[in-house]
Amino acid sequence: MDRKKAAIEKPYNYIFDAKMPPKLKVKLGEEFVVETDDAAAGILKQSEDSTKIWKTKEFEYTPILLNPVTGPIYIEGVERGDVVLIHILDVLPADHGWTAKIEGLGQLTYDARFPKVSQKSLVRAIKHHPGPSGTFSDGTAEFPRDDPSKPPIKWNLAPFFGTIALAPDHESISSLIGPYVAIKGGFGGNWDARDVKKGSCIWLQSFHEGGLLFVGDLHASQGDGEWGGIANESPGMGIFRCDVVKNKRIPYARIEKKNSIIQLNNGRPVERVLDEATIWLMQWLMEDYGFEEAECYDFLATCPDFKYNVYQSVPPDAYTVGAEVPKKYLE
Amino acid sequence: MDRKKAAIEKPYNYIFDAKMPPKLKVKLGEEFVVETDDAAAGILKQSEDSTKIWKTKEFEYTPILLNPVTGPIYIEGVERGDVVLIHILDVLPADHGWTAKIEGLGQLTYDARFPKVSQKSLVRAIKHHPGPSGTFSDGTAEFPRDDPSKPPIKWNLAPFFGTIALAPDHESISSLIGPYVAIKGGFGGNWDARDVKKGSCIWLQSFHEGGLLFVGDLHASQGDGEWGGIANESPGMGIFRCDVVKNKRIPYARIEKKNSIIQLNNGRPVERVLDEATIWLMQWLMEDYGFEEAECYDFLATCPDFKYNVYQSVPPDAYTVGAEVPKKYLE
Amino acid sequence: MDRKKAAIEKPYNYIFDAKMPPKLKVKLGEEFVVETDDAAAGILKQSEDSTKIWKTKEFEYTPILLNPVTGPIYIEGVERGDVVLIHILDVLPADHGWTAKIEGLGQLTYDARFPKVSQKSLVRAIKHHPGPSGTFSDGTAEFPRDDPSKPPIKWNLAPFFGTIALAPDHESISSLIGPYVAIKGGFGGNWDARDVKKGSCIWLQSFHEGGLLFVGDLHASQGDGEWGGIANESPGMGIFRCDVVKNKRIPYARIEKKNSIIQLNNGRPVERVLDEATIWLMQWLMEDYGFEEAECYDFLATCPDFKYNVYQSVPPDAYTVGAEVPKKYLE
Amino acid sequence: MDRKKAAIEKPYNYIFDAKMPPKLKVKLGEEFVVETDDAAAGILKQSEDSTKIWKTKEFEYTPILLNPVTGPIYIEGVERGDVVLIHILDVLPADHGWTAKIEGLGQLTYDARFPKVSQKSLVRAIKHHPGPSGTFSDGTAEFPRDDPSKPPIKWNLAPFFGTIALAPDHESISSLIGPYVAIKGGFGGNWDARDVKKGSCIWLQSFHEGGLLFVGDLHASQGDGEWGGIANESPGMGIFRCDVVKNKRIPYARIEKKNSIIQLNNGRPVERVLDEATIWLMQWLMEDYGFEEAECYDFLATCPDFKYNVYQSVPPDAYTVGAEVPKKYLE
Repeated sequence: MDRKKAAIEKPYNYIFDAKMPPKLKVKLGEEFVVETDDAAAGILKQSEDSTKIWKTKEFEYTPILLNPVTGPIYIEGVERGDVVLIHILDVLPADHGWTAKIEGLGQLTYDARFPKVSQKSLVRAIKHHPGPSGTFSDGTAEFPRDDPSKPPIKWNLAPFFGTIALAPDHESISSLIGPYVAIKGGFGGNWDARDVKKGSCIWLQSFHEGGLLFVGDLHASQGDGEWGGIANESPGMGIFRCDVVKNKRIPYARIEKKNSIIQLNNGRPVERVLDEATIWLMQWLMEDYGFEEAECYDFLATCPDFKYNVYQSVPPDAYTVGAEVPKKYLE
Repeated sequence: MDRKKAAIEKPYNYIFDAKMPPKLKVKLGEEFVVETDDAAAGILKQSEDSTKIWKTKEFEYTPILLNPVTGPIYIEGVERGDVVLIHILDVLPADHGWTAKIEGLGQLTYDARFPKVSQKSLVRAIKHHPGPSGTFSDGTAEFPRDDPSKPPIKWNLAPFFGTIALAPDHESISSLIGPYVAIKGGFGGNWDARDVKKGSCIWLQSFHEGGLLFVGDLHASQGDGEWGGIANESPGMGIFRCDVVKNKRIPYARIEKKNSIIQLNNGRPVERVLDEATIWLMQWLMEDYGFEEAECYDFLATCPDFKYNVYQSVPPDAYTVGAEVPKKYLE
Repeated sequence: MDRKKAAIEKPYNYIFDAKMPPKLKVKLGEEFVVETDDAAAGILKQSEDSTKIWKTKEFEYTPILLNPVTGPIYIEGVERGDVVLIHILDVLPADHGWTAKIEGLGQLTYDARFPKVSQKSLVRAIKHHPGPSGTFSDGTAEFPRDDPSKPPIKWNLAPFFGTIALAPDHESISSLIGPYVAIKGGFGGNWDARDVKKGSCIWLQSFHEGGLLFVGDLHASQGDGEWGGIANESPGMGIFRCDVVKNKRIPYARIEKKNSIIQLNNGRPVERVLDEATIWLMQWLMEDYGFEEAECYDFLATCPDFKYNVYQSVPPDAYTVGAEVPKKYLE
Repeated sequence: MDRKKAAIEKPYNYIFDAKMPPKLKVKLGEEFVVETDDAAAGILKQSEDSTKIWKTKEFEYTPILLNPVTGPIYIEGVERGDVVLIHILDVLPADHGWTAKIEGLGQLTYDARFPKVSQKSLVRAIKHHPGPSGTFSDGTAEFPRDDPSKPPIKWNLAPFFGTIALAPDHESISSLIGPYVAIKGGFGGNWDARDVKKGSCIWLQSFHEGGLLFVGDLHASQGDGEWGGIANESPGMGIFRCDVVKNKRIPYARIEKKNSIIQLNNGRPVERVLDEATIWLMQWLMEDYGFEEAECYDFLATCPDFKYNVYQSVPPDAYTVGAEVPKKYLE
């Protein structure tokens, strides 16, 4: 298939802004490709001292210019007040990724108990191997040990886009510090949510004609919470297809997976955003799936397949969660 | 096998207290049975108004006497300063469970958007069916809908003990309001953690000769967080076997499952206790599994199989989490 | 004195944006006047149903267009990387203010225990009387009781500007939802901090030539926390004079009062931002006031005049605090 | 006046426990004296290394035996279900106090930015001078600088009891880790609230005949939050007189000062306990002071004399706040 492509273009873009001219126009139902560079714009790759990025021009800004996003992509047929359904057909990392400790970032940055984390900022390069598909979409990671005599740790890659968003309404917001409370609308952000992956459909609120989609921050793999704030960062690309639900208002973004639905939320403290996500999930189950109020409350309390996901838990302000119910209970 | 049994005895016990005489003595490695009544001491079972329990003598106490625990069980060979390893061989619910809305308890108790939750306190009876084993350990639940013309919702039971604890050091603490911050020691509590289940081994800190084990609050099934504070509550029994690690100090309790290890923690806000649990998990991996400091940090950030569990999330003060790593990465 | 004035101009501005053309240019040391309308742009004044504002065009935006700000004001001699010192010479409310319950806003908006708050949205008009100065700067408030046979409650007005900010760096941010975490820089926001008052000097980080000052949201009086999110809202004006500290970086904004210094912070949970503010205050005392590290720590623990201010505490995301030390200990 | 006295007795008591025999019996309205040792039982006084207390027998317990309390004191005429009004007639520190950094305690204990706090544990001795009364009740503190060539910092002492409690209902709870959430009842705890001072009347919920009062942890002075967890700790004594309100239930403890009333609360996150305290204060104003619901809400939002106090803010679990209204608005 010959798909349109939103390619990486320099200078990189670090903001969700409705005033930017579209990089690409796509139709509803049309497959398209988005290329993305890694969160540090390709500067860090080797096992080197990460502090060099503190001396770049990008780090003179506030917030720093980390996490470039490709876009905006104009989706024909989308208007203000719609919900855009973004189907993720594939997520393809490159043949490598990296992680790092960056001064001032992460839970242990000043922790005297962990001097190798708090005092050094080394990059760790992670090699990727292709999977059965011949791509890195289903590939494996090779995580090198500090002691080179030990064999590397291996795992199956689980790639996803850390950042996905439509343009916000009357604000322009950093693509790094952009996961927002519901009062800002469920337009997306830098969520680092592992379920923004192949096979998922992301529901985002549109505030503009064309929706204006931004994508970036591919993570080839990440643990829950993204400990320290930096995952297995990789350049790569994704394949997408968009649908629209006209004239619909959602309290915050949602994800539909093959076998489950997820109400997302973002903010602090985590127990508050879990509660709020659960309330919105109850409203969703009651409005769209025929649940009664009392049974819905009891169902979430007792069904062993109702799950909370803490996708991202990075100070000072990046906390994304999901409340997930299997579809088999909704039929 | 003819196992010793800690039977239910009236009046019920609602406190973790080292001064109580043991109900049972067991040896290290010996299998034993513990019988438990449900959290409301069997008073609530039918689809009736739960407010009747507010008029019982038990509800005149502060905190209320909900969540009876069977024990203490004296484990021979355990001393102050040891860690007790409690192997859970089976968890057997009864043929029924129930859930309820109880005034003043849970996130929606005063929420005007959910009048059927905030104004009524109906009990929902849940029928259990036996599984392949002939018991309810692997049975199924039948959750009745509010509209009786709809078929009930069914799921596989996932039974566990909501409450498991050794006696605390110099305090005596309610078995209902007993999940405590680390500064109180990892002796256990009313965690409502679904991994306190068949096949798990629970590590608890001992502060007394004999350890003095208490068990209760069997949940036949529960969603993450225990929305509203009441799960599928059921009487039943468990089969246990204890080992000991002599003279060991852990920062808070842990769980070892067949294929993973979990560092637990308890407290608020949830992001803080997740961070603390992750720090303790790093220390555990470095001390017992040969991880270096920097690689351990990077590993948790990038391994897609590192998971956070939010087991319990009930206001005002019942928040239990776990940080879980598969054993396959530890060999 | 004939001062330059930044007058109210329609359409109102609801964003902190460096791309807007300046409304006024002032010199360092020059006194100037800023006029501001109230948070609801003058629509609500009488004892009426506040829900009418939900039907306005301004409430169709996300976030809603509440809290108009006058500006930007270009301060000659200010550059990127400086700190602007904004001296507040006077804050002059109008002859009236109002407060209200607005659906969806505030802690009790869905609380079934308070039906008159959660179900009604009445505006309360508050009459102001002039003080010894002949203005409302030192005037009094007359708060009417619900029972008209009771005399009104009276207090001395304590006027301040709820919102004060320079333009952010590469973002454009709502003037309503604009109190941000430190990682966004201490450029200001909708703090609702009662110490942004006559006699105070506010330190804000400049990211642009001219600084680009915005002011709004005059509160004629407010309790700590701004319970429910709406204070005694009033149109009015302020008199200002700016100085600059060249080439200085502060972790977040600060206030200098006649007899004390205050390190501000913003975010959730409140205990975390209090901790962070205290750390920055320690660094400030050590850098500028000759304190040693250990004595500084002990001093804040034991000095009875060290105070925490919780200025604003409004869900979901408006939490501003200050850590305050009297100057008499700094000499 | 010849007052009865509850003297310090060894071994010290570190628990709130209704089963302990009373040390003293007093009548309602009768003045009595309570002597207390400092939080470290007199072991730390000089400018020495505080780590010596980690080697004491008291530090082998969990939680550690810090913060001895004198009591219980039996108050004749008090029964279960009453509220005890504890009038504090005077608080008299000794001629010295101390503060310290103790390993593992406080916000900076592992902070690499503050090596003199995180790596050393020095005690700072603080000299007290008598005031106009001839006692240290109204005396002054002399805080020595690290650089002995600098003059010491001086302030007026502001003494209060950090710990005040009646016996809990069916639990026995550490006097160090004893400030509890409301669900445990407002019996008191280790609050470190500076308003538990001369002239205040403390309202505590009684769960036992005689009430069973415990007092300890005199702080000769303390900043808001008790940064790091240790204030100006001093032995000393207090003079008290108790009254009773029969058969009354309060949501959590309260303080009545000469010119204001305060609703206390305890727990995390701080914004949650401030919200809860404000709701209880509204209920108090509506029940006892004739406020209507809507006006009460608006009053707290707009009255500039409504204050939040963050008395104690010490990780992991010691957070005490107060919501305070001047009495002049209640007449």
